Amino acid sequence: MSLTLTPLEGIPEVQPGDDLAGMLLEAAADLLEPGDLLVVTHKVVSKAEGRLVALESIQPSDLALRFARRWGKDPRAVELVLRESQEVVRMARGVIISRTRHGQVCANAGVDLSNAGGGQVACLLPLDPDASARGLARRIQAAVGFAVPVVVCDSFGRAWREGIVNVALGVAGMDPFTDYRGTRDPHGYDLRVSRMASADALAAAAELAMGKVDGVPAVRVRGFPWRPGEAGGVALVRPPENDLFP
Amino acid sequence: MSLTLTPLEGIPEVQPGDDLAGMLLEAAADLLEPGDLLVVTHKVVSKAEGRLVALESIQPSDLALRFARRWGKDPRAVELVLRESQEVVRMARGVIISRTRHGQVCANAGVDLSNAGGGQVACLLPLDPDASARGLARRIQAAVGFAVPVVVCDSFGRAWREGIVNVALGVAGMDPFTDYRGTRDPHGYDLRVSRMASADALAAAAELAMGKVDGVPAVRVRGFPWRPGEAGGVALVRPPENDLFP
Repeated sequence: MSLTLTPLEGIPEVQPGDDLAGMLLEAAADLLEPGDLLVVTHKVVSKAEGRLVALESIQPSDLALRFARRWGKDPRAVELVLRESQEVVRMARGVIISRTRHGQVCANAGVDLSNAGGGQVACLLPLDPDASARGLARRIQAAVGFAVPVVVCDSFGRAWREGIVNVALGVAGMDPFTDYRGTRDPHGYDLRVSRMASADALAAAAELAMGKVDGVPAVRVRGFPWRPGEAGGVALVRPPENDLFP
Repeated sequence: MSLTLTPLEGIPEVQPGDDLAGMLLEAAADLLEPGDLLVVTHKVVSKAEGRLVALESIQPSDLALRFARRWGKDPRAVELVLRESQEVVRMARGVIISRTRHGQVCANAGVDLSNAGGGQVACLLPLDPDASARGLARRIQAAVGFAVPVVVCDSFGRAWREGIVNVALGVAGMDPFTDYRGTRDPHGYDLRVSRMASADALAAAAELAMGKVDGVPAVRVRGFPWRPGEAGGVALVRPPENDLFP
């Protein structure tokens, strides 16, 4: 069976306090069928949840000032990245790789800068992307009458590989993994190490249909055989004690 | 526009020396249109290219013997992983993360074990996945009369994240990146850091349509606006000198 990714068009610019679930439903309710799921970029979730900070309101620390001066960065943006981090993993060459409050290891703690509304504004990650995903999934299910899993995504860099790809930050209504452990390949070999991070793959796939500059914040995925599950996107974060690159 | 991923069914088990391009064409020629691309799992490429090694033929080194004994591994498999590596990045807890001859950083140097044909057999990565992809793309173009980019993929683990996702090892006929640098978002903000690793995202997406145990080695992707390019999958490998996690 084919898998189809369809961008949801016509969703207006999201503002703090907007009813994002309602806006997604307006765009998608007639297009949803049982079995579908939605991938939603974190940016609209963050905006609706008011996770925007005017840079002019930020007083940078000495560390932020020094790092910013050395690498030609905005010290207020550096300060925000530090505030959004629970731990700095690498801080070099003008790049900050840190572990966010959610445990996500990424560049700049997921802080994006934009010029929304005149002055420079930073968009932070949602406080709890799994809760955000659950809230959207609950509203959508109530409206359409069947379960529609929701993946909230952001684009991350990777160690060892160039370019960024979308990953899943928040997941609701589906198992974030497809577990092949215990299954056997056609030769009877136990595929025990194979647990696919399907929610990450769905996030990556959605970006291909989304584009970056076209203002499409959500993609409908049809034909992926998701299984119900409540582990959330947090299950995709490897605990530091199990990581060879902590 | 929607993006559609369609598994190519009915491709028989690939054997060393098989004409993989011919087999893909048999399954896909009638299904291809201009604009399509193919994602092919490296396993069938490796098999067709004869990159199979019988474990019984391997004489393990002392290092392989010691590591295997400590962690309950097959010393011959460990030896093969070491032979396929140009550099060991981490070797702990029974896991070997290494840099392959191609520069790819991954677990076990991409060596897969299976029981193909009775005894234990290791399947190695293709010697030159970009050359493999180019060979397939050339044959397919000659047969169908238009360019069909080819992505050769494998599933990799990641630092900091649980589960595996498919990535692109070899790429032919398309730019492996979608470059948003220099473009501007709706607020005029320069998206200068955004270069999407589209070939990796295509590989990840293909796995969603492929499944792991169903023996589907290739997926047709329709609706992705690829641009021609010859950088290859090698461009997705970050040079160690630019990496914060070398």
